[in-house]
Amino acid sequence: MQGEQRLGIWQRTRRWLVLGAAALVLAACASGGGGNTDPLPSWNEGTSKQAILKFVDGVTREGSPSYVAPAERIATFDNDGTLWAEQPLYFQFLFMLEQVKAAAPQHPEWKDNAAFKALVANDHAALAEMGHKPILELLMVANSGMSNEAYDQTIRDWLASARHPKLKRPFTELVYQPQLELLAYLRSKGFKTFIVSGGSVEFMRPWVEKVYGIPPEQVVGSQQGMKFDMAGGKPVLMREPKIDFIDDGPGKPVGIYKQIGRRPILAFGNSDGDLQMLQYTVAGSGARMALIVHHDDAAREFAYDRQSKIGKLDKAWDEAKAKGWTVVSMQRDWKQVFPAPKN
Amino acid sequence: MQGEQRLGIWQRTRRWLVLGAAALVLAACASGGGGNTDPLPSWNEGTSKQAILKFVDGVTREGSPSYVAPAERIATFDNDGTLWAEQPLYFQFLFMLEQVKAAAPQHPEWKDNAAFKALVANDHAALAEMGHKPILELLMVANSGMSNEAYDQTIRDWLASARHPKLKRPFTELVYQPQLELLAYLRSKGFKTFIVSGGSVEFMRPWVEKVYGIPPEQVVGSQQGMKFDMAGGKPVLMREPKIDFIDDGPGKPVGIYKQIGRRPILAFGNSDGDLQMLQYTVAGSGARMALIVHHDDAAREFAYDRQSKIGKLDKAWDEAKAKGWTVVSMQRDWKQVFPAPKN
Repeated sequence: MQGEQRLGIWQRTRRWLVLGAAALVLAACASGGGGNTDPLPSWNEGTSKQAILKFVDGVTREGSPSYVAPAERIATFDNDGTLWAEQPLYFQFLFMLEQVKAAAPQHPEWKDNAAFKALVANDHAALAEMGHKPILELLMVANSGMSNEAYDQTIRDWLASARHPKLKRPFTELVYQPQLELLAYLRSKGFKTFIVSGGSVEFMRPWVEKVYGIPPEQVVGSQQGMKFDMAGGKPVLMREPKIDFIDDGPGKPVGIYKQIGRRPILAFGNSDGDLQMLQYTVAGSGARMALIVHHDDAAREFAYDRQSKIGKLDKAWDEAKAKGWTVVSMQRDWKQVFPAPKN
Repeated sequence: MQGEQRLGIWQRTRRWLVLGAAALVLAACASGGGGNTDPLPSWNEGTSKQAILKFVDGVTREGSPSYVAPAERIATFDNDGTLWAEQPLYFQFLFMLEQVKAAAPQHPEWKDNAAFKALVANDHAALAEMGHKPILELLMVANSGMSNEAYDQTIRDWLASARHPKLKRPFTELVYQPQLELLAYLRSKGFKTFIVSGGSVEFMRPWVEKVYGIPPEQVVGSQQGMKFDMAGGKPVLMREPKIDFIDDGPGKPVGIYKQIGRRPILAFGNSDGDLQMLQYTVAGSGARMALIVHHDDAAREFAYDRQSKIGKLDKAWDEAKAKGWTVVSMQRDWKQVFPAPKN
């Protein structure tokens, strides 16, 4: 069945993975706020905030010429770089690399593996020399061969203890306060909010409900192979060492179609990997809104765009300018970037 | 991206398709009801109805030892044979075969195709002789090469005019009244109701929201290949002649994991294709319920089980007996099968 699906792993490697590994090879702020009746208190007054409020009012006010029925109010958000930070490396990659190290005792054959040795030694020069393929091979092996439940637990354990290398906070606190407010605001206006991310569904589902208010069934993402097995009379889903679907770039509209089955009326991204999702969203009839976060805030977060290997914003930026999409400047539009630290 | 995914179509053919074609090769009642405060007026009093009411009460009543938080109240329903009829052939197959005939003018090469000629001539003997592969090849070609929106419209058009060969009603009226009540009842108790079907998401989504109250994003099903393209500057999703995922048998728990990301607490099926979904559902901790419709009502619908090529109920029936799952007798448990005809 699914098991017969033999896919060339390397052929199917996508930019999301490639860039993650490339960044690995190359190397490697919070404030407080409040609000009253303003649904977006962490958004500064300005064209971005006004455009959002105007769009939402138009599609939700009965009698409005651009009114959209509640069932059709689908909003999709990229995750990495749109809902939470993504520098210096996609957080899922940091987790997966930990898994490689943790899996080492079960893989004595890695002892002489050049990529593994370079990884453990943090030998960037050697890693750069060999390219990304040997690292992806390790990731694929280290992150498969276990049940979905065991993997889920590993992710939860890692998230509970890991800290961002520069910002020194738990990763689940490195979500954007203005976006938390936007998600809640959209839902209060009858929208269903979805994540559509290059990250895997498994990595996001353990925490996004608590952090974003988005339930697991509204997470669209990349999919690793999964196989149903009977293990000692107990049905179990086992992770396979292959990628079933990459939800990035042109994969995002496909993932939206597969899992949501309706075209979004609002989509929010931050990089070229979101371009096709944004194009697909605005190509529908009626009122549509496309938004992009521009990471231009080195003081409070990171500043990067056209030249970045992680979250490259180049073609999508050009298209945003050409088509009048809303480009949100993190520096100018966001009063606060991250939620206040807990306790 | 997705396009690189080269899958052997025949290797990936599953029982759902095989049986459909086999049945094709082999061949080719409504009443009124009402209700007051009974949430399931079309269900006769008896052990099945009592088991459902007792389970729902247990998982939804605060303070109950088997209480389940609303977010975890996931119920999954097979479609063919569980929510609507499936004899003499899965309705989707009837549609797809129409598509083969409709596509003929665009495929002059089919003129000398033996399967096509036998199909048009209704020559069952010749079709039986050649097996299912040539028919599946025609189906795959005839049902691809168009945008998802064009395909969607074709399905809507067909559903609007087609009638069941024996029951002489539109297919969307051949849904089970007791199940419509059960779906609504579960939702009124905070459940999210999902379809998990061997049929394709595309065939179900155009009508299930109106008929079952289940939105497109809560439909899990088989998936044909889909590719994002720019056609004259307009983004479009094009159907590809390959199967991406078969949501049947062991594929159902995988489909549930991929799209829902939570284990159901209630699952309802009718055939061996639902066995693994039911096993996976009851294997979770806490209160769980597995149900099977037994088609034993030749007078009002159809009667078939262990020997049937469509909706075979054999292994799942044995397991239901062994494990004490609820087997719903259509004849005994359902006061009414189909909704009253719409004048």
